[in-house]
Amino acid sequence: MVDLDLNRSELEALLAEDAPWGDLTTAGLGLGHRPARIDFFARADLVVAGIRIARGLVEVAGGDAEVLVADGDPVPRGTPLLSARGPAGALHRAWKQAQTTLEILSGIASAAHALVEAAARGGRVVPVACTRKTLAGARRLQIGAIVAGGCIPHRLGLSETVLVFEEHRRFLPDVPLAEMAARLRRVAPEKKLVIEVASPEEAASAAAAGFDVIQLEKFAPAEIARTVALLADRHPRPVLAAAGGIGPDNAAAHVAAGADMIVTSWPYGARPRDVQVRLTPDD
Amino acid sequence: MVDLDLNRSELEALLAEDAPWGDLTTAGLGLGHRPARIDFFARADLVVAGIRIARGLVEVAGGDAEVLVADGDPVPRGTPLLSARGPAGALHRAWKQAQTTLEILSGIASAAHALVEAAARGGRVVPVACTRKTLAGARRLQIGAIVAGGCIPHRLGLSETVLVFEEHRRFLPDVPLAEMAARLRRVAPEKKLVIEVASPEEAASAAAAGFDVIQLEKFAPAEIARTVALLADRHPRPVLAAAGGIGPDNAAAHVAAGADMIVTSWPYGARPRDVQVRLTPDD
Amino acid sequence: MVDLDLNRSELEALLAEDAPWGDLTTAGLGLGHRPARIDFFARADLVVAGIRIARGLVEVAGGDAEVLVADGDPVPRGTPLLSARGPAGALHRAWKQAQTTLEILSGIASAAHALVEAAARGGRVVPVACTRKTLAGARRLQIGAIVAGGCIPHRLGLSETVLVFEEHRRFLPDVPLAEMAARLRRVAPEKKLVIEVASPEEAASAAAAGFDVIQLEKFAPAEIARTVALLADRHPRPVLAAAGGIGPDNAAAHVAAGADMIVTSWPYGARPRDVQVRLTPDD
Amino acid sequence: MVDLDLNRSELEALLAEDAPWGDLTTAGLGLGHRPARIDFFARADLVVAGIRIARGLVEVAGGDAEVLVADGDPVPRGTPLLSARGPAGALHRAWKQAQTTLEILSGIASAAHALVEAAARGGRVVPVACTRKTLAGARRLQIGAIVAGGCIPHRLGLSETVLVFEEHRRFLPDVPLAEMAARLRRVAPEKKLVIEVASPEEAASAAAAGFDVIQLEKFAPAEIARTVALLADRHPRPVLAAAGGIGPDNAAAHVAAGADMIVTSWPYGARPRDVQVRLTPDD
Amino acid sequence: MVDLDLNRSELEALLAEDAPWGDLTTAGLGLGHRPARIDFFARADLVVAGIRIARGLVEVAGGDAEVLVADGDPVPRGTPLLSARGPAGALHRAWKQAQTTLEILSGIASAAHALVEAAARGGRVVPVACTRKTLAGARRLQIGAIVAGGCIPHRLGLSETVLVFEEHRRFLPDVPLAEMAARLRRVAPEKKLVIEVASPEEAASAAAAGFDVIQLEKFAPAEIARTVALLADRHPRPVLAAAGGIGPDNAAAHVAAGADMIVTSWPYGARPRDVQVRLTPDD
Amino acid sequence: MVDLDLNRSELEALLAEDAPWGDLTTAGLGLGHRPARIDFFARADLVVAGIRIARGLVEVAGGDAEVLVADGDPVPRGTPLLSARGPAGALHRAWKQAQTTLEILSGIASAAHALVEAAARGGRVVPVACTRKTLAGARRLQIGAIVAGGCIPHRLGLSETVLVFEEHRRFLPDVPLAEMAARLRRVAPEKKLVIEVASPEEAASAAAAGFDVIQLEKFAPAEIARTVALLADRHPRPVLAAAGGIGPDNAAAHVAAGADMIVTSWPYGARPRDVQVRLTPDD
Repeated sequence: MVDLDLNRSELEALLAEDAPWGDLTTAGLGLGHRPARIDFFARADLVVAGIRIARGLVEVAGGDAEVLVADGDPVPRGTPLLSARGPAGALHRAWKQAQTTLEILSGIASAAHALVEAAARGGRVVPVACTRKTLAGARRLQIGAIVAGGCIPHRLGLSETVLVFEEHRRFLPDVPLAEMAARLRRVAPEKKLVIEVASPEEAASAAAAGFDVIQLEKFAPAEIARTVALLADRHPRPVLAAAGGIGPDNAAAHVAAGADMIVTSWPYGARPRDVQVRLTPDD
Repeated sequence: MVDLDLNRSELEALLAEDAPWGDLTTAGLGLGHRPARIDFFARADLVVAGIRIARGLVEVAGGDAEVLVADGDPVPRGTPLLSARGPAGALHRAWKQAQTTLEILSGIASAAHALVEAAARGGRVVPVACTRKTLAGARRLQIGAIVAGGCIPHRLGLSETVLVFEEHRRFLPDVPLAEMAARLRRVAPEKKLVIEVASPEEAASAAAAGFDVIQLEKFAPAEIARTVALLADRHPRPVLAAAGGIGPDNAAAHVAAGADMIVTSWPYGARPRDVQVRLTPDD
Repeated sequence: MVDLDLNRSELEALLAEDAPWGDLTTAGLGLGHRPARIDFFARADLVVAGIRIARGLVEVAGGDAEVLVADGDPVPRGTPLLSARGPAGALHRAWKQAQTTLEILSGIASAAHALVEAAARGGRVVPVACTRKTLAGARRLQIGAIVAGGCIPHRLGLSETVLVFEEHRRFLPDVPLAEMAARLRRVAPEKKLVIEVASPEEAASAAAAGFDVIQLEKFAPAEIARTVALLADRHPRPVLAAAGGIGPDNAAAHVAAGADMIVTSWPYGARPRDVQVRLTPDD
Repeated sequence: MVDLDLNRSELEALLAEDAPWGDLTTAGLGLGHRPARIDFFARADLVVAGIRIARGLVEVAGGDAEVLVADGDPVPRGTPLLSARGPAGALHRAWKQAQTTLEILSGIASAAHALVEAAARGGRVVPVACTRKTLAGARRLQIGAIVAGGCIPHRLGLSETVLVFEEHRRFLPDVPLAEMAARLRRVAPEKKLVIEVASPEEAASAAAAGFDVIQLEKFAPAEIARTVALLADRHPRPVLAAAGGIGPDNAAAHVAAGADMIVTSWPYGARPRDVQVRLTPDD
Repeated sequence: MVDLDLNRSELEALLAEDAPWGDLTTAGLGLGHRPARIDFFARADLVVAGIRIARGLVEVAGGDAEVLVADGDPVPRGTPLLSARGPAGALHRAWKQAQTTLEILSGIASAAHALVEAAARGGRVVPVACTRKTLAGARRLQIGAIVAGGCIPHRLGLSETVLVFEEHRRFLPDVPLAEMAARLRRVAPEKKLVIEVASPEEAASAAAAGFDVIQLEKFAPAEIARTVALLADRHPRPVLAAAGGIGPDNAAAHVAAGADMIVTSWPYGARPRDVQVRLTPDD
Repeated sequence: MVDLDLNRSELEALLAEDAPWGDLTTAGLGLGHRPARIDFFARADLVVAGIRIARGLVEVAGGDAEVLVADGDPVPRGTPLLSARGPAGALHRAWKQAQTTLEILSGIASAAHALVEAAARGGRVVPVACTRKTLAGARRLQIGAIVAGGCIPHRLGLSETVLVFEEHRRFLPDVPLAEMAARLRRVAPEKKLVIEVASPEEAASAAAAGFDVIQLEKFAPAEIARTVALLADRHPRPVLAAAGGIGPDNAAAHVAAGADMIVTSWPYGARPRDVQVRLTPDD
């Protein structure tokens, strides 16, 4: 859904950042022009993410790459991921960046995948959305990785969704929620109105005011269940999104309690999954 | 040592990525021009990193910020970090990006700091260097964060250091190590020659061949000690850098065994440290 | 809602495109350092758009500007818009670009404003949304201008909304609409589902399938009325968006017939509104 | 003469602006990888402009395009313009941007062409030059479109031509025109000196002072004729460029009155010419 | 005439290229925050060029600079050029780049100035134009430097002037020169037509064909004089530009022989003029 | 060692700077689509540099190029360097930029080569390193050219090496050199410590303090010899780098006196080496 890819000028910039003046060691040893091959393997079970970026790095550096898996594929330890041929200088240049990209992004994708599976143990399949709490400059890659793992992006920025926080409402203490919803619907009639709430009662008021999605911030499962009960008569019921501190340990409980979706930043903090690389003469 | 900062056009790009079309909610509610203030606090003990980027985001968005701590400061939970005033629209726009940047980078800096302290328990103070296994597009920030935490950068790319891997030597099976060193010294007479080795014996050969720094890849502490012993008569002795799988649990043991420095990627995988934000009307 | 503004590097790029090698005439006549002032006036009734860009151009060129109106202000012919002082070279450099920007964007804003007023003559106030049929490279400015004129942006791109066209359905001839809606809701539970239809009957099917917004492509007012009737029993009724060939002549009729909103590209084709400039010595 | 084309990184930027996070609808429906074809047809008589950009958008998105007409070709309604094959995701991604680009630029080219024909009805074929009053960020495309339509660019910026306005002369009230011309000739001996004048008498003075091109600002045809008469004895006579408010209605009269060329911004305000698109499965 | 300046993002890029990871020495010694001052002096007689770039580098790095001379000023050895205060880290960062820029550009400006003076010894003051044979990526600076030295730019690129080479004529062996001139005048009625010729006879044909500027490629002074004689009856006579291998040694002879202007690349190859720098604590 | 190459977006930028609006002459004459060929020859003995950039310019412009020599090849006058075919418009567009790039960079490479040979006449082969005193924006090309000529880069910026100047020491008057070295070794244990000194005695102190490379600034050969003598007992002896005013005339003397390497900026000021171009119809 999200293209986990970089365009040519972005790949060139990555290689240039890493070797602004060329590869000193490879050139100094005089082996840059020797024919070589490089092979990447999963060194752990993982869900692949970033394979097209790895290929792009190899190709922009001057190699010829063949991709052997696709982003989103869950593969067992030992699976060959990418194989390339080319001058040793080209492959040395792309090696660590391609490896690191695969390791970090597959780590995130694998965590995302595990979280989706954990949530499913709550008895229903609900979307798991990841927030925009990504590292500055790396949002596109991190979002791409959680999508590869089966999650969806939550809100990608301030322009594409309407999300009312307590920090907005504080500026309008005398404006009823329904009036806020009406204002927002006028400027965004084609968007769902989302609001973050802090208690089941607030959720009920937000639903009454016409909000389409209610983000339940740090609700315990019991509070989610109470919110569901409070809204039982409402048709259509707003989407209830459970958010705040949710990971594999408690996702199922939130789903079982009635959440329609999960919102979390959990997978971004995943440790990289190791990828093994073999770089050899190709004679 | 490394400036953990972004220039104006990079800050503009971050804000534009997050809100390419403006802040729909704030504008829709009509509160963008209201005077506001925003305060950031540590919600956990942390080592600060990214404070100048947070300030930059607020100021480029249109606020007036005062920085209350410096990158590298270890601060207790509750410490005020940054305070700003400006139109509510400006502060809403910078809020989450500034907060997330502080959280992620301070997480890395705090981990780096913890690792330096762990290593120091080995009885000597040795440099802890972090690798270039950073996320594509985020190297400058991640490296800046480990430096804020007291680590140093290892190798920042292929152009600035000479580092011979087994993957190089495989292309030159008949060239003795001393000849490799000589070749490299001719093209890089002002740089130390670094080599990665897999056993104490290989380390001894590398030292004999004239390498200045020997990277001991995945050596157990006992192997490090044996390497130190093998090189006891060599003056000056090359720098012995212990690398591969080193974190707070085993850093002290590596130091105690005689490593002159530690090389690791461990802090990059740190969880963010929470930063609390208060955004209110400023009437 | 949308910031009709450019950041510093974009303003620099515009000035550089216009005068990559400086202002040959002004410099050749040797008057670049003379103190000067420049004043911009509306030469026709207009709705202001682009005033911050005009100021930005003057200031980046080296002048000191005071803005006298705001984007969105409807002003009569003769109104002073912007006044600046600075070296003649700076003001000459910004002159035509600032003037042209104001003229073109105010032309679009004035048309957008007229369209909103025309639609209101249909008896209800409904949002008027403008499409993304903007000139390559100019989307941000053209969208900003319609917003200054009182319209809202429709869909700003392929990532931020779900909009099903016949061109999608053709690939899934055997998939019922409700199944499509279900698929889309799983990946975008926080977004409204929008669909374009070609007849009132199709609109009814789309409503039954659960779409939130139904875009009525080139419906005559009578067809809109029939669609409203067909959906009379549906609560909540989906938003009915009238689209295709709508301008000031027929907007009211579409609204009167029951459209909940208008979708159009009409204002982008507006002729510029003239802006008069006085550039004189400031002695 | 002007390449109506964009380079790869510009095309990538356009696609990224439109779909920073991918095509949500196409991906959500799961049809991105289906083989597809897309065909563009003129839905009105038009002069083609932008065909290479349309092709570029399709190809950078991942399709394989064949161009069936060339920029500048006048084609009747129904003419096939471009045909492409590729994955449905690629074609959906390029579709609207390619279509809109063709529509807007062909609208401008068609207007430019009509204006050239209108001017020719004045009895002589004279160049029709279009000004630089283009939309910020879109100059290259708009200039390319008028060239496709048979016009030429007037002045493309402040660095490439010498053009003296009243706004320059006001700073040098005591400097005779001939002295201005002499100064300018020293710094720009390889360029024609152009001056804007407000009356036939001023035109005569400018000619006497040695200016090469005299821009007659808002001269009625009768005033042009009088200017021609005043300059009858001058060999070589300066080029007389009629400017200000000239469009298809009055171009011939200006030419008939003796103008050597026309200067206008008229074609930029043209309405788009419709282009029809068919996007279907390609099985 | 040409602004010898860089905008903020270009200055940031230069500093970033030089110190992508900060100033290792200054930071390592822990003296980055100490108050400091830096003073630049001419170490040789020179014509200043690049002073605004030097200031810009210091200021973007974080210092406060005062400019003491202007581009184009001829100054004797020992003249103070620029003085700045700021943290030692900021001044160390800008030091060498500011110094080198001043040295190289002032070297070019000084050479340009010397060439203008040499040409003037031919008995008349004629413009000295420098070609576009500049180093890739450095055209703006090198052109700015020759202008600071009193030269003018010749042709800045392929879009802004018409210049017919033998390499064009070879493609049109059957088209008479007058027909070429007519074609070119139609597409560029506001530009002078320039042609390069190889003999006085060819110059005479080009003049007869109506070209405005005739570039005499590698004409000896005697050939120039013969060309002048051949064109004696022509009013107005085209501009005769002497080009090819002209430097301070032979410029006067070309002028004395009748050239109306000189075209050369000579100043770009000038050796830098030394600039002395004093960087000290400012306590 | 350093890739003397530009990536695609850089090549596009160079062509766009030169012809932002196309090639007026070639297009105006109507010969842009004619088949053509272009051939580049050495017009003087030279060491090739920039051949891949020349090819890149031709290919991005739209031609098909074959490279006939490699960067670093010393070739005699008359040698064919590059040959290309394509539309005349493409070849005209790339012509002068490709030619100028080859001429300037080969000039630098040839000078670098001559300097290496001159130094070798000192009786030993020592590295000749060129400084970073390059023109703003052109560092990559100028460094690439000296490497093509057989030199090596000295220090490429402030981040990659440790180099202590008198301008640093002035801030730390009470800190002994050995303490400075210790501080620097802690932050840069994998780098050699370099220091610039002004006398043999200072060199001896620096060696005693543990610096790895000692830069002898403007030492006469006799002073170098005395420095060598002073350090005769030191094992390993630091690298002695002779710097300051060294060119082909005095390089050998410095080497003969005992310098281990030369540091100079001399080759950057080299005059271009002429490259002849033949551009003809290809029928």
